[in-house]
Amino acid sequence: MLVNGKHYRTVWINSPFDGNVYMIDQTKLPSEFEIMTLTDYKQTAECIRNMNIRGAGAIGGAAGFAMAQALHANAELNEAYDFINKTRPTAANLKHALDRVCAAFKKNNSVDDALKEAQNIADEDAEQCRLIGKYGFELIKKIADEKGKKITMATHCNAGWLAFVDNGSALSPAYEAKRNGYDVTVYVDETGPRNQGTLSAWELSQEGIKVNYVDDNNSQHFKERKVDIVIVGSDRAARNGDIANKIGTYQRALVAKANGIPFYVALPLMTFDLNCPNGDAIPIEERSKEEVKSSSVLPNSVNVKNHAFDVTPAELITGLITPKGVIEPTQENILKLFKD
Amino acid sequence: MLVNGKHYRTVWINSPFDGNVYMIDQTKLPSEFEIMTLTDYKQTAECIRNMNIRGAGAIGGAAGFAMAQALHANAELNEAYDFINKTRPTAANLKHALDRVCAAFKKNNSVDDALKEAQNIADEDAEQCRLIGKYGFELIKKIADEKGKKITMATHCNAGWLAFVDNGSALSPAYEAKRNGYDVTVYVDETGPRNQGTLSAWELSQEGIKVNYVDDNNSQHFKERKVDIVIVGSDRAARNGDIANKIGTYQRALVAKANGIPFYVALPLMTFDLNCPNGDAIPIEERSKEEVKSSSVLPNSVNVKNHAFDVTPAELITGLITPKGVIEPTQENILKLFKD
Repeated sequence: MLVNGKHYRTVWINSPFDGNVYMIDQTKLPSEFEIMTLTDYKQTAECIRNMNIRGAGAIGGAAGFAMAQALHANAELNEAYDFINKTRPTAANLKHALDRVCAAFKKNNSVDDALKEAQNIADEDAEQCRLIGKYGFELIKKIADEKGKKITMATHCNAGWLAFVDNGSALSPAYEAKRNGYDVTVYVDETGPRNQGTLSAWELSQEGIKVNYVDDNNSQHFKERKVDIVIVGSDRAARNGDIANKIGTYQRALVAKANGIPFYVALPLMTFDLNCPNGDAIPIEERSKEEVKSSSVLPNSVNVKNHAFDVTPAELITGLITPKGVIEPTQENILKLFKD
Repeated sequence: MLVNGKHYRTVWINSPFDGNVYMIDQTKLPSEFEIMTLTDYKQTAECIRNMNIRGAGAIGGAAGFAMAQALHANAELNEAYDFINKTRPTAANLKHALDRVCAAFKKNNSVDDALKEAQNIADEDAEQCRLIGKYGFELIKKIADEKGKKITMATHCNAGWLAFVDNGSALSPAYEAKRNGYDVTVYVDETGPRNQGTLSAWELSQEGIKVNYVDDNNSQHFKERKVDIVIVGSDRAARNGDIANKIGTYQRALVAKANGIPFYVALPLMTFDLNCPNGDAIPIEERSKEEVKSSSVLPNSVNVKNHAFDVTPAELITGLITPKGVIEPTQENILKLFKD
């Protein structure tokens, strides 16, 4: 996607491969835009650990490149695999990418094959997100065409291109609509405690999309029916259509429902966990209290609870925007996605 | 209420009157606890303007004392009235207090009568809040007695004693329960963008009540049914039972409803605006974008929307806790409060 008018992915390698992995440093965003040049796989892995890159798709892309980078430098395969794999133990995309690159390498002991596979992983992530954009745009189009090619979306957190290799999930339909000449406005909330909403506001602005930015408590745009559609991302989807996403998603889904605003979840196929029967089976990570910054001024006796995610039940979700089309969130529909 | 084991009101005068108004400096809380000595009415008024004291009840108390302080110092009555009245033009309690103190003075041209009336205003505010605590506690008691005298509440913003002269509205039932030997835990959310949740967490801790502090997006305690009851305050209540309160209250009411948790609003009689037919008639103040602190890092093209309040419709409210008892939020019940 565009930054200062130039196209970037979140992570990439040059062709022919020069030994480096390149990455946008997301810890500096949105204040500063900086490209990191990572000359060995351990550096790349450390950047995954330190969240210079974040978001399942982007992590998968970076991990694939890191593994190929290790093989290119003749690093010991198992050692490199473990080193990279331990950076973010819960991200399914990460291990999946490492396994694919290693398998490609082992077939003919070919570094070129490993590099090609890493590139494939990144390309597939970008492509799945592009397809989400295509199907999401078809959805938006119906609403927007009745309003003079105008659409107002709301989102939560950052499920934009910064969370993937390119295009994004929740924001991909907005980009596609903009490219097709539609007048797009996106309401972005702060998304405390880590304020990932600032990333969404930044990347949308770079593409010339209008952004209204609000505190997490503010739902006046829902109440005043200024929002046509809500689209959020997901960290994990159960097979019954319940989805886990950044904490606060559930409250937005309730507000949308109460005000008759359709609520969609955009997600690539890797996000579905078919072994997970429903939202109750998704463990909710608790993170450090230091993330809730205002708590630092409170007496020590105060307990701080900091859950990173919450579950939105399928009944609050109008539809799932997937790379294979938009479906209602039922087990039957979800299983069908994986049959063809 | 207690601070470091000693009883304080938010604002007070000594008896006999020594010319000063004393006030807890709320701009310093919760990091520092400091008492301000205000030697003339203009200082007291400036403290209202600068939010060293905030919350409708507390502002009313401070304004009454400021007016009496002015009369005691032989200030010109109309000039002092205007000076104090202009500090926070929207607070109904403020003008009401000034009118009462002036009327008391004018009857016999008596500064003593003015001082007495200012004291009455403060005492009545504290007493109304005490009665809210009494009736709120009766409500809590029914739930708590079935759980071994244990109760877990959730609140939003600060409708504690810091927002009144004493006792508070939403938190008064918690204090009353604690005084009666009940085991009380309160979930307090941050309440961005100004984080008034820190004030609630601080004052509850001072009284030895257990506090769980969460980010505004976190509603796991609702979803996991760890909360027995939600009690919030109100800035203005319409005659049909719709209430305006700090932005975010509406989302909490929806979450409570979705999870079968009773949602109460605690409010003194002055908060009811019988001229206001319903929530749609309550104007929603928009405040400066600088309050939404994370927006400072965003591109200039990003619009920031910062509404200070939202309206929670009566249908989401289980009951209103008033100084005359707990009522269902209907026009009939509300009008009856003012008949006797």
